[in-house]
Amino acid sequence: YGKYPDVITSMQFERMSNASGPTGGKIIRPSDGKEPKNVVFIKCVGSRDPEKGKTYCSRACCMYTAKHAHQVIDKIPDSKAFVFYMDVRTPGKAYDEFYEMAAGEGAVYVRGRVSKIYPRGDKLVVKGEDTLVGMPVEIEADLVVLATAMVPSEANDELAKKLSISMDKDGWFQEAHPKLRPVETFTAGVYLAGACQGPKDIPDTVSQASAAAVKVCSLFSKTEMATDPQVAAVDNAICSGCGLCVPVCPFKAIELVPIQERVQGQMQERLVASVNEGLCQGCGNCNSACRSSAINVKGFTDQQILMEVDALCL
Amino acid sequence: YGKYPDVITSMQFERMSNASGPTGGKIIRPSDGKEPKNVVFIKCVGSRDPEKGKTYCSRACCMYTAKHAHQVIDKIPDSKAFVFYMDVRTPGKAYDEFYEMAAGEGAVYVRGRVSKIYPRGDKLVVKGEDTLVGMPVEIEADLVVLATAMVPSEANDELAKKLSISMDKDGWFQEAHPKLRPVETFTAGVYLAGACQGPKDIPDTVSQASAAAVKVCSLFSKTEMATDPQVAAVDNAICSGCGLCVPVCPFKAIELVPIQERVQGQMQERLVASVNEGLCQGCGNCNSACRSSAINVKGFTDQQILMEVDALCL
Repeated sequence: YGKYPDVITSMQFERMSNASGPTGGKIIRPSDGKEPKNVVFIKCVGSRDPEKGKTYCSRACCMYTAKHAHQVIDKIPDSKAFVFYMDVRTPGKAYDEFYEMAAGEGAVYVRGRVSKIYPRGDKLVVKGEDTLVGMPVEIEADLVVLATAMVPSEANDELAKKLSISMDKDGWFQEAHPKLRPVETFTAGVYLAGACQGPKDIPDTVSQASAAAVKVCSLFSKTEMATDPQVAAVDNAICSGCGLCVPVCPFKAIELVPIQERVQGQMQERLVASVNEGLCQGCGNCNSACRSSAINVKGFTDQQILMEVDALCL
Repeated sequence: YGKYPDVITSMQFERMSNASGPTGGKIIRPSDGKEPKNVVFIKCVGSRDPEKGKTYCSRACCMYTAKHAHQVIDKIPDSKAFVFYMDVRTPGKAYDEFYEMAAGEGAVYVRGRVSKIYPRGDKLVVKGEDTLVGMPVEIEADLVVLATAMVPSEANDELAKKLSISMDKDGWFQEAHPKLRPVETFTAGVYLAGACQGPKDIPDTVSQASAAAVKVCSLFSKTEMATDPQVAAVDNAICSGCGLCVPVCPFKAIELVPIQERVQGQMQERLVASVNEGLCQGCGNCNSACRSSAINVKGFTDQQILMEVDALCL
């Protein structure tokens, strides 16, 4: 990609086949504007490949490639569509039937990965292996379309910091529980919908967006909010104001505030940590970081936990 | 299945491997209670097979089979797990990584379908073809686990009639639009969540359930409801009261009601069709069925449509 003009991404193909796109829906070769006859689609480009790309599956590519192959066959007379795949993943409702339709129309599905693409005349030679017959394949293509990996937005990093939400190893936003709380984050009031959380197709995105909306509704439907009573509390008498707890808090719930206190008959000002109970999620990070044990999670103070351990072990 | 006691379904395996299940989490052969060493998992049993089973993919099987294979390797020392598959479909977040883990632990994934299972001594011989190497495979198994097709509840049929919602060819409830309205039906006030609409895994079901909840919330949040103005209306003067429109209405919005009218100076009672505008979704079925053109969809009367056609064609 980038070396040969006739190797394009699926996004570029999508624009081309769109009636309101730059070519008015006509599928052409970018190099000479001619109509391609042999179109090769390559799936999992940069996906499911721990060596060179992303480890995850990009989820939507199997379906849009089936659509694109169908469009090639449908729009261009005497055309051929070849699809290189690792596994055909069409698990949605009526997805498998759609793939069967594309294959039934004449799209040739080749199981295997492509090793090399090089030009021959004005054509591109796609070399790969058909892992089903165990034989090398060579196809002369007019156009090669790559189903590239879905990657998170580059701005996710900054946004995650701003909203105090966590990201997974691939840079997607992390949900509170992948099965039971798929649209929530650990930060109260921040919800996830769509491909910010991981590769997603349209039906799943729409469902998730509605799901996120109901969470927001349930927040706004109450005149009072119940918060978890297990929040951190600072013992001002012990707190040295070192501030170690401030950076470890993932919810930005702790800041240093000045308090007035009487020392030897004189009023003095001193900095101590202060917890915003509305933001605190009771994670206990500050508790671990505090060297003077001045900060504790209510109901789970060091002393209470030690006494529980004593009671169990004795 | 049903012929040999050691051929079980994934649901039965799930119960066995559950600590609160009948075996307390111990995986055993139903025939003799011994611990199986070689466990063969067969995916797509009855799925993706227009000849003998369902055409669709059952979506969740790839993931639970990967989990089961992992459990066999994890719980039984010196055990082997073989998985026969058509395509590995792990498109969810971190799903591919989970499958790679199961395969990395030693689960042997064999691409191909099983042709025959027969007993040899106290073992079961699983015969199939490895379509990747193009060779027949024969595995002596202690236990065979079938990932059977997910099928809609038998009660769907009756429920669909009761709620006036439609079902697709496989017996799942039909959503209003697969991409844009995945949790809605054409019947106002009836929403879909989970595997009643098609095979679904837990994260998708939870998202969809929340999505359905927000639709219900938005219904209840208003003191007044706006309905679509495009509903059917009956011209009593023309209606012959034949009742043809009543059974064709998918929303049960039409009934025959008696009206009083003066005929030659005398009051007479006559039956005419009456549309419940709250139930009518403006589909126009009644319009097509009415022989006397007495029923029309407001804003889309026969006359209006004919005039539009005239204006365009002249």
